[in-house]
Amino acid sequence: MGNRNPMRVGRGLAAVLLLTAVVSGGAAGGRTVPAEGGRLRPERMRAVLAEFVEFLSIPNVSSDRQNIRRNAEHLAGMMRRRGVEARILETEGGPPVVFGEWKTPGARRTLLVYAHYDGQPVDPAAWTSDPWRPVLRAGTVAEQAAVVLPGDLPADGGNEWRLYGRGASDDKGTIIAALAALDVLKERRMPPSVNLKFLFEGEEEAGSGHLEPLLKAEASLFEADGMLFCDGPVHQTRRPQIVFGARGVLSLELTVYGPDRALHSGHYGNWAPNPAAVLTHLLSSFRDRDGRVLVPGFYDDVRPLSPAEHEALQSVPPVEEELRREFGLAWTEGGSARLEERVMLPALNIRGLSSGNVGRTAQNAIPTEATASIDFRLVPDQSPAGVRDLVEKHLRSLGFTPVRTELSAEERRRAPQFVRLTWGGGYPAYRVSLDDAFAKALLQTLEESTDAAFVRLPALGGSIPMAVFARLLDLPVVLFPIANHDNNQHGPDENIRLKNLWDGVEMYAAILAGLGGRWRE
Amino acid sequence: MGNRNPMRVGRGLAAVLLLTAVVSGGAAGGRTVPAEGGRLRPERMRAVLAEFVEFLSIPNVSSDRQNIRRNAEHLAGMMRRRGVEARILETEGGPPVVFGEWKTPGARRTLLVYAHYDGQPVDPAAWTSDPWRPVLRAGTVAEQAAVVLPGDLPADGGNEWRLYGRGASDDKGTIIAALAALDVLKERRMPPSVNLKFLFEGEEEAGSGHLEPLLKAEASLFEADGMLFCDGPVHQTRRPQIVFGARGVLSLELTVYGPDRALHSGHYGNWAPNPAAVLTHLLSSFRDRDGRVLVPGFYDDVRPLSPAEHEALQSVPPVEEELRREFGLAWTEGGSARLEERVMLPALNIRGLSSGNVGRTAQNAIPTEATASIDFRLVPDQSPAGVRDLVEKHLRSLGFTPVRTELSAEERRRAPQFVRLTWGGGYPAYRVSLDDAFAKALLQTLEESTDAAFVRLPALGGSIPMAVFARLLDLPVVLFPIANHDNNQHGPDENIRLKNLWDGVEMYAAILAGLGGRWRE
Repeated sequence: MGNRNPMRVGRGLAAVLLLTAVVSGGAAGGRTVPAEGGRLRPERMRAVLAEFVEFLSIPNVSSDRQNIRRNAEHLAGMMRRRGVEARILETEGGPPVVFGEWKTPGARRTLLVYAHYDGQPVDPAAWTSDPWRPVLRAGTVAEQAAVVLPGDLPADGGNEWRLYGRGASDDKGTIIAALAALDVLKERRMPPSVNLKFLFEGEEEAGSGHLEPLLKAEASLFEADGMLFCDGPVHQTRRPQIVFGARGVLSLELTVYGPDRALHSGHYGNWAPNPAAVLTHLLSSFRDRDGRVLVPGFYDDVRPLSPAEHEALQSVPPVEEELRREFGLAWTEGGSARLEERVMLPALNIRGLSSGNVGRTAQNAIPTEATASIDFRLVPDQSPAGVRDLVEKHLRSLGFTPVRTELSAEERRRAPQFVRLTWGGGYPAYRVSLDDAFAKALLQTLEESTDAAFVRLPALGGSIPMAVFARLLDLPVVLFPIANHDNNQHGPDENIRLKNLWDGVEMYAAILAGLGGRWRE
Repeated sequence: MGNRNPMRVGRGLAAVLLLTAVVSGGAAGGRTVPAEGGRLRPERMRAVLAEFVEFLSIPNVSSDRQNIRRNAEHLAGMMRRRGVEARILETEGGPPVVFGEWKTPGARRTLLVYAHYDGQPVDPAAWTSDPWRPVLRAGTVAEQAAVVLPGDLPADGGNEWRLYGRGASDDKGTIIAALAALDVLKERRMPPSVNLKFLFEGEEEAGSGHLEPLLKAEASLFEADGMLFCDGPVHQTRRPQIVFGARGVLSLELTVYGPDRALHSGHYGNWAPNPAAVLTHLLSSFRDRDGRVLVPGFYDDVRPLSPAEHEALQSVPPVEEELRREFGLAWTEGGSARLEERVMLPALNIRGLSSGNVGRTAQNAIPTEATASIDFRLVPDQSPAGVRDLVEKHLRSLGFTPVRTELSAEERRRAPQFVRLTWGGGYPAYRVSLDDAFAKALLQTLEESTDAAFVRLPALGGSIPMAVFARLLDLPVVLFPIANHDNNQHGPDENIRLKNLWDGVEMYAAILAGLGGRWRE
């Protein structure tokens, strides 16, 4: 996963997490019907919180090698206490992977559960409380909710309470919920219906640079029939969601050249080529104002949505009006098209432009070069290599000569227009078929065991390397998030809403108990 | 001249001065035939140098009010010693203007000579010698030429010697040459043929912010029949040049808006509008890659070149091949068109682009805004106001709403696409008719009194507010430079080549002696 994009789901930009306007009261998810009867007992919830607080107290930044190992060992201990056969797998130069196995007698299927136990680096000064000393509140920091103790938890589970700490949602909370589900099943005397494998990574937030070699070297260890990618938030309406894919990603920086020194725009303007003007024409030939990519052939490999995927899209609640208001948008690309329809398409985003100077430092000069930074979002069956080829072919057809390295003055002088391309890492998109046995069984299990109206997203607009896991491990992958969307993931005051945690425990329990029986050929 | 552009002729960008490759040996100018016989005597040359060194020794940065006044008083003294009736005119809050008058009995015409005695600020650490302690060298600093003394001057005038100091070329050297011309005429017992007025400004390099009110208040004082604008360098081939106009200038900064916070490009890409993409399309509609401005009506007011101007252009030596090599250009805008033909047209230069981030700080985000900074170069009979109107009309036709101030989030949310425009100062272009009596007389005088082949430039590509003087004083204006092109104007090690100084003295003497007789109705 060395190419994993640093701004995948929910990452980096606070923007994603600021959709407070979209939250329609917090009850839209509906009541979760506990797996095969019963509901979480208060003692169970307090025990989960106690274990969670202990786990969150171990700093988990990937580069903090000593603490990340403490996390791994602690996690392996948590698994072993439940009877999961846990192993710490060393990576070459990276933090350990915690692997676990639970064999269910008679089970025909093996489910691989993926999550990461590392977290984003923190800026403690920006946090309301210490990121590594978890704090429970009877509401949000924004509401100035009082600090409370796990022992204060009311019998209803303190649904709107929040637990603050790095990793509360991303992903330690997910791990806690998955392991607690095993306890719940035991309590209810219900065995899991599938064999389980756990793959808990300690370097996801730092780019997963050491995971792929391990997956390749230990392929048989990770053999399974389906993978649950446990990361990310539920829908902004608080409805639970199942996500059957994600767009791929590919980045490109391109630079075009003018004179080899800034030239007086009076003496040389409209004779010496202006690289900023060249760039605007080049970029205009890449995409229209409305978001359609104009690079010839760009849409050739786009796999159309299946009727089932079209139908699934209808389950996505409309949020467009609220988002327009929230983001100050008087118009959106694609006219009246739904956001979720738009992100089913590939995209070309200009993430940066730079040439010469603007504002107070602007000079009447012809700049020496102009640079654009771009990220492509890919859909099945586009490939990063295919897009690279199309873009370079398009540039050649415009009279440009693509190069990969800085040119000498002599080279620039001799040859026609150069465009310097720096392709970043990338990986393809992924969409599991909604007819896939694993995908169908998972959805059926969840829908039959709760009365929540699941948002069924054929693919996330953001990028997660689901395709990479699917290819390396040769299995279907489904993303199943449990965190509240307003969890401040990656920022200060990361938190999990307890209702999301309890629902998460119940949904994992439902999956473990019910998936095997519904997972057919 | 409050709107005077900070990058007019030869200003700011070292680029303009780096045309060493274009210099074809230094002898292309040909021998100057001294005005009506004789040549500068060595004693005269030594006296000129002595006076020059003294003048250069007074620091002349406009904001250094004490020294700038010392310059003014010193200059007035130099004028009075020659019988010029000199006055120091105070400006409101600015440095003084030195005004001088020389009445020639029987002369029918009055010539106004303009130059500036202030210089650009200096970075002494970048100079080879102290900018305010002039140093004479038997060649250039780059050649590591020996330091010499004015007394060492050989009888031939040490043509390739250079005098180093701030203002040596820009413009104290010009002032020295013009005043020395009076001495030469006296020595040769030839009276000037015109009445003379001198307008020596002390704030040109700081924008001439206080000159216009003075010109208006004292209009009758500056009344004349023609103005010699004494500034700038001769042609890069070392041939002397007369310049009959200059392009005007107008700057514009424009910003288009996306979401009011940076948005995750995966989750919102090709739904939330990308301002960088909007900007590239907007700018592409402004000009093509080849430099042609596409704003409807932009060329409507362009005054075609007259046959005489076309003919004058033929006098400009070709420098394109050398410039292409010098600047690393594999192509130029306008195909095979000559540089000098190209700068006879108006231009739109994109001097800066900025949006989001490029390079290492690039994020997979939709930027909140995108900005371009532009300078227009205008030609007669375009006006800054006319261009503003055309651009705003064009933007409206594209669906934009031009605004002048930052918008509130609420305004952005409500209305269609805004484009924020910040129009900078500007002034129109100027081209005196080559049939103008003053222009014709000046050219004839110079051509008949020297054997140099003058470069006759209908207009400079860069901008000088000749139109502003022409309008305020209601007179024809011609630019007449004497400095070597490689004078390091505005940079460290500013210098004048002595051959340019001696030719300057002779040419001024020729003008003063011969202009009146040739200047007809």
